[in-house]
Amino acid sequence: MSPSERRFVISLGCPDRTGIVARIATFIAEHGGWIVEAGYHTDINTGWFFTRQEVRADSLPFGIDELRRRFAAVADELGSRTDWRVADTGERRRVVILVSKEGHCLHDLLGRIGSGELDVDLRAVIGNHRDLGPITEAHGIPFHHVPFGKDPDAKAAAFREVRKLVDDHDPNAIVLARFMQVLPPELCEAWAGRALNIHHSFLPSFAGARPYHQAYERGVKLIGATCHYVTAELDAGPIVEQDVIRVDHTDDVTDMVRKGRDAEKLVLARGLRAHLEDRVLVHGRRTVVF
Amino acid sequence: MSPSERRFVISLGCPDRTGIVARIATFIAEHGGWIVEAGYHTDINTGWFFTRQEVRADSLPFGIDELRRRFAAVADELGSRTDWRVADTGERRRVVILVSKEGHCLHDLLGRIGSGELDVDLRAVIGNHRDLGPITEAHGIPFHHVPFGKDPDAKAAAFREVRKLVDDHDPNAIVLARFMQVLPPELCEAWAGRALNIHHSFLPSFAGARPYHQAYERGVKLIGATCHYVTAELDAGPIVEQDVIRVDHTDDVTDMVRKGRDAEKLVLARGLRAHLEDRVLVHGRRTVVF
Amino acid sequence: MSPSERRFVISLGCPDRTGIVARIATFIAEHGGWIVEAGYHTDINTGWFFTRQEVRADSLPFGIDELRRRFAAVADELGSRTDWRVADTGERRRVVILVSKEGHCLHDLLGRIGSGELDVDLRAVIGNHRDLGPITEAHGIPFHHVPFGKDPDAKAAAFREVRKLVDDHDPNAIVLARFMQVLPPELCEAWAGRALNIHHSFLPSFAGARPYHQAYERGVKLIGATCHYVTAELDAGPIVEQDVIRVDHTDDVTDMVRKGRDAEKLVLARGLRAHLEDRVLVHGRRTVVF
Amino acid sequence: MSPSERRFVISLGCPDRTGIVARIATFIAEHGGWIVEAGYHTDINTGWFFTRQEVRADSLPFGIDELRRRFAAVADELGSRTDWRVADTGERRRVVILVSKEGHCLHDLLGRIGSGELDVDLRAVIGNHRDLGPITEAHGIPFHHVPFGKDPDAKAAAFREVRKLVDDHDPNAIVLARFMQVLPPELCEAWAGRALNIHHSFLPSFAGARPYHQAYERGVKLIGATCHYVTAELDAGPIVEQDVIRVDHTDDVTDMVRKGRDAEKLVLARGLRAHLEDRVLVHGRRTVVF
Repeated sequence: MSPSERRFVISLGCPDRTGIVARIATFIAEHGGWIVEAGYHTDINTGWFFTRQEVRADSLPFGIDELRRRFAAVADELGSRTDWRVADTGERRRVVILVSKEGHCLHDLLGRIGSGELDVDLRAVIGNHRDLGPITEAHGIPFHHVPFGKDPDAKAAAFREVRKLVDDHDPNAIVLARFMQVLPPELCEAWAGRALNIHHSFLPSFAGARPYHQAYERGVKLIGATCHYVTAELDAGPIVEQDVIRVDHTDDVTDMVRKGRDAEKLVLARGLRAHLEDRVLVHGRRTVVF
Repeated sequence: MSPSERRFVISLGCPDRTGIVARIATFIAEHGGWIVEAGYHTDINTGWFFTRQEVRADSLPFGIDELRRRFAAVADELGSRTDWRVADTGERRRVVILVSKEGHCLHDLLGRIGSGELDVDLRAVIGNHRDLGPITEAHGIPFHHVPFGKDPDAKAAAFREVRKLVDDHDPNAIVLARFMQVLPPELCEAWAGRALNIHHSFLPSFAGARPYHQAYERGVKLIGATCHYVTAELDAGPIVEQDVIRVDHTDDVTDMVRKGRDAEKLVLARGLRAHLEDRVLVHGRRTVVF
Repeated sequence: MSPSERRFVISLGCPDRTGIVARIATFIAEHGGWIVEAGYHTDINTGWFFTRQEVRADSLPFGIDELRRRFAAVADELGSRTDWRVADTGERRRVVILVSKEGHCLHDLLGRIGSGELDVDLRAVIGNHRDLGPITEAHGIPFHHVPFGKDPDAKAAAFREVRKLVDDHDPNAIVLARFMQVLPPELCEAWAGRALNIHHSFLPSFAGARPYHQAYERGVKLIGATCHYVTAELDAGPIVEQDVIRVDHTDDVTDMVRKGRDAEKLVLARGLRAHLEDRVLVHGRRTVVF
Repeated sequence: MSPSERRFVISLGCPDRTGIVARIATFIAEHGGWIVEAGYHTDINTGWFFTRQEVRADSLPFGIDELRRRFAAVADELGSRTDWRVADTGERRRVVILVSKEGHCLHDLLGRIGSGELDVDLRAVIGNHRDLGPITEAHGIPFHHVPFGKDPDAKAAAFREVRKLVDDHDPNAIVLARFMQVLPPELCEAWAGRALNIHHSFLPSFAGARPYHQAYERGVKLIGATCHYVTAELDAGPIVEQDVIRVDHTDDVTDMVRKGRDAEKLVLARGLRAHLEDRVLVHGRRTVVF
């Protein structure tokens, strides 16, 4: 990244009132900040205001820490307690991926990283099976195998190990790339706003197990995929991205599984990118994606 | 329609076994029938076979009644009891539309009929409000106003009147174009396989009332519409067609209602066309749409 | 429209530099203006900045004329000569539609207006054939028949009459809803930025005549429609909206014409709405659509 | 593949006349053949008939060679000279991929093969640069580096080497996965009907070099990708599959390149699958894709 491409990204949610845009824009302009992308949104139903601003780092006379310190006063004035962030695109995002046996999402993410499209620091892949170890390591990424027993104690122990492996990297995103294990509530909480799941249906339809089988039984004409933040309630977290693919009567469950994978890969990749670029602001059960 | 464009449409479902295609194709070929479109499908899970054939009417030495009589023997031989039809595209399909106050689907169908795109015999539009009478009559179509009271007796009486008005036309399709009234079980049964509803969500998500509000609350990124056959279980009949439209955080419920209308209109028009062209074969809760 | 729903819409293009957002937002905030929607965009290649702001009319202490007068100074300061507008959503937009024989786009627009979805003041429909007169008048809209001869003089005279009929209404939009006549250069100029055409292909593919035939010959798997501003170069004006519909080998030209209509109707309706809501800013051959 | 999943795939094009379906279906039925999927299509404009049939291999009393020998007589009778094939899904398809520096399509195909979704025998990857060697070899696939000089003689020599490397494997498909070199006419001819290219635009728009730059300049609202057979005329071969992705004014060329890759990957994967499953029948400049 050349110096001129480095950005500071300010995002904030606060109660709506007049003058917010002027307040933030003036704060940035006072310091000579050059805004290269700006998004604003007001949720009229909840009276909440959202913004995301990308400022050229080299247009400001100070660094990220000073910007953060100064912006804290603005955020405070606007009534945004903890609902704001200042990020630096010069810091590569740290990512950990959790997988099971099905590799299509992992292959896709590794391909995007390998071809330079997704510029992240993939720290580790953790699998409850060994299947995806070789391809991970072929990409030069450490793979950790953590077997999950069937009994609750073994499972709890496995999750403690996963948690330790993940938290060691302090990742910006924990990606459940068809992980197939339900995170315990304490992990949902610890990783709130950072854990992204890909569910292989157009939620809220077909939550839970075997969504393609459910879709086939119901005879739907489109199948979908949903990327959402993980919360304690299964498959009910705030949705970041969704898409669908057309199917017809000639597609049995096997065909749906195959075609649906393309939706899963795209939706996860788009959702992860939006998350890592600080484009997603969560408000209750809904998201603003700038 | 020129004589060379007239078709006899044979559709059939029966238990799968070898030789069905040969049996039907030979039957048609024996009489010199010229197949212009043919669809075949086997549902491996249920062991059921489906076919639809379009034959040039002028290639056969006899008319629809004789074709029907002769094909009955083939259908019987193949074990298809009542699960087959022979239709004549030379007979214009009779349609009755049920509406309430919202006119977008009705406007769309009237426009398609008026511009010659949808060549049907629209016999009547029936509304439980008067709002859509003028536009209907401007298109030269009779409009019947049947007010629906709130109490069960008035409602039952209104449905009896609707039924009489509909059945007088012996329609090939009864279209619930945002009718907003739940058909009583006896009408679902009487009109089974002929009553098409447009539901303003991507079913099975958001069945029942106010689907756009439900979609907004859940924060989905796509909204949809579903055209399905009406059955006694609300919004659970076999699906003929579905589609979706992308929304984002800037769309409130009003925007979703507006955008969703485009999906509703398209999905209903496509579903109705498929039904009237005898392209839809129902098997349990699923449909084959050739 | 309730007073609280009335908006003043400011749109502007100007050379990019730091502080523009702050300048505009501060101008609005100084007068107590409540921004309900704001869009910003910088075209890095041309160094041009674009913005569109919706302000609640009842949040400002003055009316549209005073706002326009005061904002002129800001626009001037930012180097935006004539490249800005201030519009009032309280003034219904005046629209004139030009048609030929094919009615699907007209039916669609009349339906949207009739159902209240598109809240415009449709002043007149002008046709070079009489076919679409009755449906226009059934919606209570005046229809003018202006026959177009084949020889250049008759054509020029017809265009003079069309121009007079159109200009009498000083419309915000002149919609060529499958008008099938090429506007002469002087009309392209007189109506620059106000005349919207719907072309029945995914431009730049298949410009000119018989695009569906061209598409069929080339064997494409998607057909499309393009809504663009009319300029002197045929089918080459700035694009406002496009969409496509999937076709396959079973679709002959007739099917493509029929299916393509749905794309045409949607694309024109979306493009027209964006134009009338002052969401479209033209810059050279490209558009910014907020 | 279990014995019950093995299929013989018959595909044929011939002049249309009555009785073709019956002739083929009867031929299959006579030998007890169990048709599991059947497609028929008549191109009315050219009077040409197309069919594709999947027959369970274990339902026939003989093998592929005898089926081919016997079907030759039927094909001959129907006037299909060389325009028919009988394939065996029990024989894995041999594939060679040609690449340059851009790896997204290769990554995608390797991922699909690695995850078992695309069950092919990938014999080799040939690159005119070394960049994609390591990932190819990490998947256990041989990689050949054939440098292409700038002068015509070096280029011709390089193509001779590529041809030799390719032809050694007698592949069912030669995939130009963003190969960036124009095949010489003799290779187009030698590989006719087997060489698939992915072009990064929605053809016929933006043929030739730098299609995303062309798309940006023209201001289109959708970008696309096209999978087509390679012919001597650049980017003009019969189209197998196309798709598009929506862009808007916020997307500069870099964004288009990135987003377009997802369309390229999907379109190439779908086109290749259709080709390898013998679903594509070419007729002039058009394709039938069953």
